[in-house]
Amino acid sequence: FRRTRSLNAPSPIQQFGPCGRIMRNSAMIMTIQDPASQRLTWYKPPLSVLVIKKVRDAMVIPPFIELVSWLTLEKRMVVFVEASVLEEPLVTKHAKFPDVKDKLMSFNEKHDDLTDKIDFIICLGGDGTLLYASSLFQQSVPPVMAFHLGSLGFLTPFKFSNFQEQVTNVLEGHAALTLRSRLRCIIVRGGYDKPQPKKPKPDATTAPWLPDPGVKLPSNLLVLNEVVIDRGPSPYLSNLDLYLDGRRITSVQGDGLLVSTPTGSTAYAVAAGASMIHPSVPAIMVTPICPHSLSFRPIIVPAGVELKITVSKDSRNTAWISFDGRMRQELTHDDSLRVTTSIYPVPSICAEDQIADWFASLDDCLRWNDRKRQRHFD
Amino acid sequence: FRRTRSLNAPSPIQQFGPCGRIMRNSAMIMTIQDPASQRLTWYKPPLSVLVIKKVRDAMVIPPFIELVSWLTLEKRMVVFVEASVLEEPLVTKHAKFPDVKDKLMSFNEKHDDLTDKIDFIICLGGDGTLLYASSLFQQSVPPVMAFHLGSLGFLTPFKFSNFQEQVTNVLEGHAALTLRSRLRCIIVRGGYDKPQPKKPKPDATTAPWLPDPGVKLPSNLLVLNEVVIDRGPSPYLSNLDLYLDGRRITSVQGDGLLVSTPTGSTAYAVAAGASMIHPSVPAIMVTPICPHSLSFRPIIVPAGVELKITVSKDSRNTAWISFDGRMRQELTHDDSLRVTTSIYPVPSICAEDQIADWFASLDDCLRWNDRKRQRHFD
Amino acid sequence: FRRTRSLNAPSPIQQFGPCGRIMRNSAMIMTIQDPASQRLTWYKPPLSVLVIKKVRDAMVIPPFIELVSWLTLEKRMVVFVEASVLEEPLVTKHAKFPDVKDKLMSFNEKHDDLTDKIDFIICLGGDGTLLYASSLFQQSVPPVMAFHLGSLGFLTPFKFSNFQEQVTNVLEGHAALTLRSRLRCIIVRGGYDKPQPKKPKPDATTAPWLPDPGVKLPSNLLVLNEVVIDRGPSPYLSNLDLYLDGRRITSVQGDGLLVSTPTGSTAYAVAAGASMIHPSVPAIMVTPICPHSLSFRPIIVPAGVELKITVSKDSRNTAWISFDGRMRQELTHDDSLRVTTSIYPVPSICAEDQIADWFASLDDCLRWNDRKRQRHFD
Amino acid sequence: FRRTRSLNAPSPIQQFGPCGRIMRNSAMIMTIQDPASQRLTWYKPPLSVLVIKKVRDAMVIPPFIELVSWLTLEKRMVVFVEASVLEEPLVTKHAKFPDVKDKLMSFNEKHDDLTDKIDFIICLGGDGTLLYASSLFQQSVPPVMAFHLGSLGFLTPFKFSNFQEQVTNVLEGHAALTLRSRLRCIIVRGGYDKPQPKKPKPDATTAPWLPDPGVKLPSNLLVLNEVVIDRGPSPYLSNLDLYLDGRRITSVQGDGLLVSTPTGSTAYAVAAGASMIHPSVPAIMVTPICPHSLSFRPIIVPAGVELKITVSKDSRNTAWISFDGRMRQELTHDDSLRVTTSIYPVPSICAEDQIADWFASLDDCLRWNDRKRQRHFD
Repeated sequence: FRRTRSLNAPSPIQQFGPCGRIMRNSAMIMTIQDPASQRLTWYKPPLSVLVIKKVRDAMVIPPFIELVSWLTLEKRMVVFVEASVLEEPLVTKHAKFPDVKDKLMSFNEKHDDLTDKIDFIICLGGDGTLLYASSLFQQSVPPVMAFHLGSLGFLTPFKFSNFQEQVTNVLEGHAALTLRSRLRCIIVRGGYDKPQPKKPKPDATTAPWLPDPGVKLPSNLLVLNEVVIDRGPSPYLSNLDLYLDGRRITSVQGDGLLVSTPTGSTAYAVAAGASMIHPSVPAIMVTPICPHSLSFRPIIVPAGVELKITVSKDSRNTAWISFDGRMRQELTHDDSLRVTTSIYPVPSICAEDQIADWFASLDDCLRWNDRKRQRHFD
Repeated sequence: FRRTRSLNAPSPIQQFGPCGRIMRNSAMIMTIQDPASQRLTWYKPPLSVLVIKKVRDAMVIPPFIELVSWLTLEKRMVVFVEASVLEEPLVTKHAKFPDVKDKLMSFNEKHDDLTDKIDFIICLGGDGTLLYASSLFQQSVPPVMAFHLGSLGFLTPFKFSNFQEQVTNVLEGHAALTLRSRLRCIIVRGGYDKPQPKKPKPDATTAPWLPDPGVKLPSNLLVLNEVVIDRGPSPYLSNLDLYLDGRRITSVQGDGLLVSTPTGSTAYAVAAGASMIHPSVPAIMVTPICPHSLSFRPIIVPAGVELKITVSKDSRNTAWISFDGRMRQELTHDDSLRVTTSIYPVPSICAEDQIADWFASLDDCLRWNDRKRQRHFD
Repeated sequence: FRRTRSLNAPSPIQQFGPCGRIMRNSAMIMTIQDPASQRLTWYKPPLSVLVIKKVRDAMVIPPFIELVSWLTLEKRMVVFVEASVLEEPLVTKHAKFPDVKDKLMSFNEKHDDLTDKIDFIICLGGDGTLLYASSLFQQSVPPVMAFHLGSLGFLTPFKFSNFQEQVTNVLEGHAALTLRSRLRCIIVRGGYDKPQPKKPKPDATTAPWLPDPGVKLPSNLLVLNEVVIDRGPSPYLSNLDLYLDGRRITSVQGDGLLVSTPTGSTAYAVAAGASMIHPSVPAIMVTPICPHSLSFRPIIVPAGVELKITVSKDSRNTAWISFDGRMRQELTHDDSLRVTTSIYPVPSICAEDQIADWFASLDDCLRWNDRKRQRHFD
Repeated sequence: FRRTRSLNAPSPIQQFGPCGRIMRNSAMIMTIQDPASQRLTWYKPPLSVLVIKKVRDAMVIPPFIELVSWLTLEKRMVVFVEASVLEEPLVTKHAKFPDVKDKLMSFNEKHDDLTDKIDFIICLGGDGTLLYASSLFQQSVPPVMAFHLGSLGFLTPFKFSNFQEQVTNVLEGHAALTLRSRLRCIIVRGGYDKPQPKKPKPDATTAPWLPDPGVKLPSNLLVLNEVVIDRGPSPYLSNLDLYLDGRRITSVQGDGLLVSTPTGSTAYAVAAGASMIHPSVPAIMVTPICPHSLSFRPIIVPAGVELKITVSKDSRNTAWISFDGRMRQELTHDDSLRVTTSIYPVPSICAEDQIADWFASLDDCLRWNDRKRQRHFD
C-alpha cells in the first residue's frame, strides 16, 4: 500500500489485523481528487470578468482603471463592475475613463443576478473584496484572482505590479487553486405569530454599514470567514445552546460565539484565541468570544457535521447574528441558526501554491512567530 | 448536487462558474468511504485477542483476571498477554489465576512479533494502555476496545461493569469505529562518521522509564498522540528549524515543539495552549512549548504534508525526541526528523459514536467549558 | 534589617552597596499601614445601615425581609432601602413587611445624596449588588458586608444562613478588610462646538439597561471592576490610542480595551485572557478584547500611573465607554478618557481573610485549576 | 485628601463612612518613599566598579577592553573583573590589554566575597550578565548599569555607543532607578537520614552549565527572574502542592511551576502564557508550565506573602529546581521550597525612566502588539 500524497491523507487501508475491516457501505463511497494537486483549467475560454474594487479608497482607482482598460482593450473581455462604481467622481473624472466607459457592463447587487454570467473574478484591494465577491455568488463561484495593494492579505495573494503577465498566465490555465470551504447558514424562524425579529435601525450618521431598511434580510447565506453570534447592542450576555448533529454539546456564556471556516480561523477567531487552520483542512472551528468559563477552549470539528445554535430558554436577552460582518439581524428565543459546510467553495487562485501562500500571509498579516533577531553589535 | 454527509465533506463540485474547473488528474483520484459511516465488521470470526492491562496498579488485577477468564473459558478465544504479567505476584497469587494460567499465551515485546497473530485487542486501564498497544503494531492494527477503570479517558470509552455484554456486542460486529490517524516519524541520521547520538543513561533509581541500554533505539516509529522535540536535560534552549514539504516555514525558540495527531491535540498540545481537534479531522497540529515569541500560535496543517525538523546550525545545544512519551533519544545537528501521516491508523472502537465519545471525554477528562451553575438559594 | 510582613513588601533598604542610595525626597515620603493587617474598627457605633438587594429575583425577598426586620427590630438600626424596593409587590405583600414598613428609610438614587448618612452597607445577592453600592458612593464608602444567596461570588463572601451572628460579629468590630481599589474615570469632552456625544437610545423592549433619557450621563465616575472601551453597536472596529503618564504606549485594534482594577481582573478581563490579580496588589490591568495582533498580551502597570485613551485620528468610527457595565456613552474623536486609581477604595469585609476569601472565590466562581481527580475503580 | 503620585498609590484614607476605619496597629506602620520618584544618589563617590561581560561572545571583547581602559585610565576607578576573563585568549591577546592588565583586580566567584568591595556594577552584553551580577550579591546589591550590544534587553537598557558620557552622568548621580524585587528561595531539606538529593551529573560534553561536582549547592538563594520547579530529566510529571501563607492553595499537574518576580514576568512566565507585570508592581507571579488543567490560569499575589512548594505525597517522581536558570537540584518528597520577596532588590539604573524603559523593552524584545501597518500602494 502506498498513500497517495493527498492533503487529506485518507488511509487507503480498510482492513485492520487479520479479521477486522470497515463495513462496506456503497452509499457512502466517494471519489475525490487530491486537493494537493488541484489546478485550474478552463473548460472553454473565459470571456466575462467581474472586477471588484475596494470601496472608499482613492488609491485603488488608478490601478482599477488600468486593469479594466487592459482587460477590455487588450484582452477583449466583457468586464462587469458594480453600478455604483460608475458614479464615483474619482472614477468618472479619471483621464482614461472615457476610453472604457462604454465598454463596461454594470450590475446592481439588489436587482441583478450574476449567476452564469461571470467566468472569472478579479478583486483589487483588501480581503473585504473577496468576502464581497463571495457574497454575490450564493451557489457556484467562478475562479477568483485577488490582488492586494501594498500589503499582502490572507485572501489577496497577488501583487499588482506586473498584473498583465499574471492575469495572462491564469487565463492560460497555469495556476494552483485553493478551494476555500464556505459555511451554509440558515436561520429557522420559529415564532410565526410573533413580531418579526429586529434588524438594527439604520442611522445615516452612525450606521452606514446597515442594510437599507427596505431590503428584506436573507435568512440563508454562505459565509467565507465566519458567522458571529453575539450580544449585539445589549451590554448583557446571552446564553446560547450549541448542538452538533442534533445533540446538545454545551452552552455558551460570554460575549458570543464564532463558527468559522478554516479560512476564517485567521480572521476573527484568531483574535479570540484560536489556533490557525490551513484552508485545505476539511473542518469547522467553534470559538467562544470572551467566555465566562476558564476552560472553554476552541474546538475543531469535521467539516461534515451540522451545528445548531439557539438562545437558551432561560436567557434574558436575544442574540444577534452577522455573516462575514454583514446582514446583522436578531436571533430570538424562537429561532435557531443551522450551520453546515456548503458544497460551493470559493476557488481562490494561488499566487504560488496552497502552502506557500498561506505561510506568506501568516508572516505578513499576523507576524506569526516573528521575534527579535540577534542583531549584531557594531 | 447533494453533498454526501461525509465528515470530511469534500465538495462534489468540480466546476466553478461557466468555464472554470479543476484539471483532471487521474493519478490523484481517490475512492474513499465516508468516515462518518465507518462501522466495524469481521471478515472472519476473531479468534485471538491481546489483552493489555495498566501496569503498576493493583486495582486492575481483579478485572483483568475476570476478563481473561471469561475470554478463554466462555468465549474460547486465544488470549495473549505480556510475559511480564505472568510474573506479577498479584496476578499469580490471585485465586482464579490457576484456572486460566495454562490457557494464556504470552509474548515479549523485545523478541516476539505479533503481526498477523492478533485479531482483536482489549485494553484495561488508562490511555497509556492504548498508546502501548499502538506501539506494538507498527503496521496494521487490529480493532481496539478500551475499558477505563473508574474514570473515562480520551482513549478508553468503555465502562467495565457489564463487559461481557459489551465485548459480545463488538465481537458480533456492532460498533462504530474512529480511525485515529498516527504519525510516521523517521529520524534521518546524518553524521555517519560522528559518534552515535546519545540516549539517556539509565539509572535504576531515577530513570525506570528509560529503555534497556542494550536495546537499539528505533529511528522509525508511529505515534498516536505526538512526537515531542525538546531541550532534554539541558536548561538551555535549542533552536529548531521547521520545514513543510521541503520549505523552511519558521524557526522555534522555546522549550520545544510538538507535532500531534488530532488524537494528541487533547494530550500534551492542549496543555501547551492548542485548540482541540476531533480525531476524524485529517490534520496535523504543530504546537510550540513555551515559545519565546508572543505570536507563535499553534497551527493546523493538512494531514498529507511532510514536516521536517532539524536543530538550527547556530544552535548551541542539540535536541531530544520522544515518541508518545517513550524511546527518548538525541537529535544532533546532523540529523533530521521527518513526520508524515501514516497509512496505518488505530481503529478505535466507539462506546457510542465518534461524536458522542469525543464530547464525553472533553467533559470528563478536561472539564471543557465547565463552569459555575446558578445554584439556588435555600 | 527585617522586612515588615506587609502584603506590599516594600523594601526598608535605601542603601545599595557602600555608596549608592535613593535620593531623599521628603515630598514623596508616605506613611502607610501594612494592608495585610487591616482590620475594621468602628470610631463610633454604626447606627444607619443601607441594605441593597438583588433586583428581579424573587428568591431574595424572604431573606431581605428577614434581614431588615432583624436590623430594625433587634438591632435598633436605621435601615435605608431603595425607594423602588418599597413598591415591589413581592415585598409589600410579604407577611412580615407591615412590621417594618414604617421603620424603613428610603432613598432615590437620582435625587438623594447618601454621603455621610450611611455607616454600614449590607448587600444581599450577587456581585452586582456591590457594584451598585460602589456606584452610590463616589467618595468615601462605608464598610460593606456582602451576602451571597446560594453560591459564592467574587464580591459576596458571606453565607446567609446564620446572618445574625455574623452581622453582630462585624458590628462588634471583628473583621478583616480588603480595600478594593477603584479607578477614577474622567471623560474630557473636547468638541465644545460639536453636537454632544450620543448615548444609546432607550427602547422599552430591548434596552431596559439604559439610563433614563432625561438623565445627564456623568463624565466622572469611579469603577470597582473595569471601564470598557468598545466598538459599541458598530460592527467596525475603532482604533484607540493608549497613553501612560502622557506618553503614547500603543494603539489598539480589535473589539476594544479593558482597564481593570485587580478586583476586575477576575471579571471581564479574565474572559479576555488576562491573568488574575489579588485585590490587594496595587496595580491597574490593561487588557485588549479580541485584538488583531497575536502579540497583544495584557499588561499590569503600577496603580499610581495615569492612563489616557483616545479614538485614533484616522479611525473611521467612534468608541463607546461603559463603567462597571453601566452609563454607556460615546467617546468621540475629540474626547479623551483618563483613568487613575482613586483614593476612595471599597472597604469590603472579609468572611475569613484577604487570602482565603480570594482563593475560595477562584475555586467556586471560576473553578480555577479544577480538574479530573483520579476516581477509584469499584 | 490628595493622593501622592506614588506608583503604588496607597490610599491615604483610613476612614470609611462616618464610623468605620482601619484599626490602628503601630507595629504595622511603614514609612516609604514613592517608588516613582526614586533616583540614584551617591553617599560618597564610587571608587570600585565591577565589570561583568557576556561569556562566549567574541564581539563583546573590544567594547569590554575599551570600557575597562576608560574606567581605569580616565576615571581612575578600581576595576574588578572575573578571574576567568583574564585567561581568555581573545582578551589577553587584545592590543590594548597590556595597558590595563596590571590595573585590573580579579575575583573568583567560588573563593572571593565581594560584599562591601563593590560600589558600582557595569554589565556588558545580554540579560544574563545582570542575572549573574545579581547572583554574586546575595544581600545588598550596588547600583547596576547595563549596556546591551546591538539589541535592547529587558535588563540592559543602555546603548554602548557613547558610554563615556552616560557612565559619567550616572557617576554624577543623574539617574532614575528601578528597584527590581528579588525572591528569596529556601529549600528546607526534610530527610536528614536519607541520601542527599541529587544534582545532575556533570558531563563535559553535554552539560557545561552544571555546577562543579565539588561545589556544594546552596539551598538559599535570591533570584531576579524566577525559580522553576519542573520534572527535570524525567518524562513523567510530578504533582506539586502549592501553599500560600501556610494554607494549601492548589496542586499542580503538568510540566512544572514558575514563581516569578515582576521582572521575571517577561522572561519564562510570558512564554508560559502569563500577563506582563511592570517591575515596580509589588507582586509575585505564579504560572504553571503546560498544566493538565484547562482552567489553570496564572495568578498574581501580593509581594508580601510566603509561598511553599512540595512534591505531593502520592507523586511517583521528585521534582527539580533551578534558580534564574542555575544551580539545578532535586526536590525530594521530604523537602520543601519556600519563597518570599527579599528585602534586597537589584537597583537597576534606567536609561530614561521606569516607564519608558519598560515599554521600550516590550517593543524591542517581545514585539508587543506589533502588527501589520497599512502599507501604502505605490
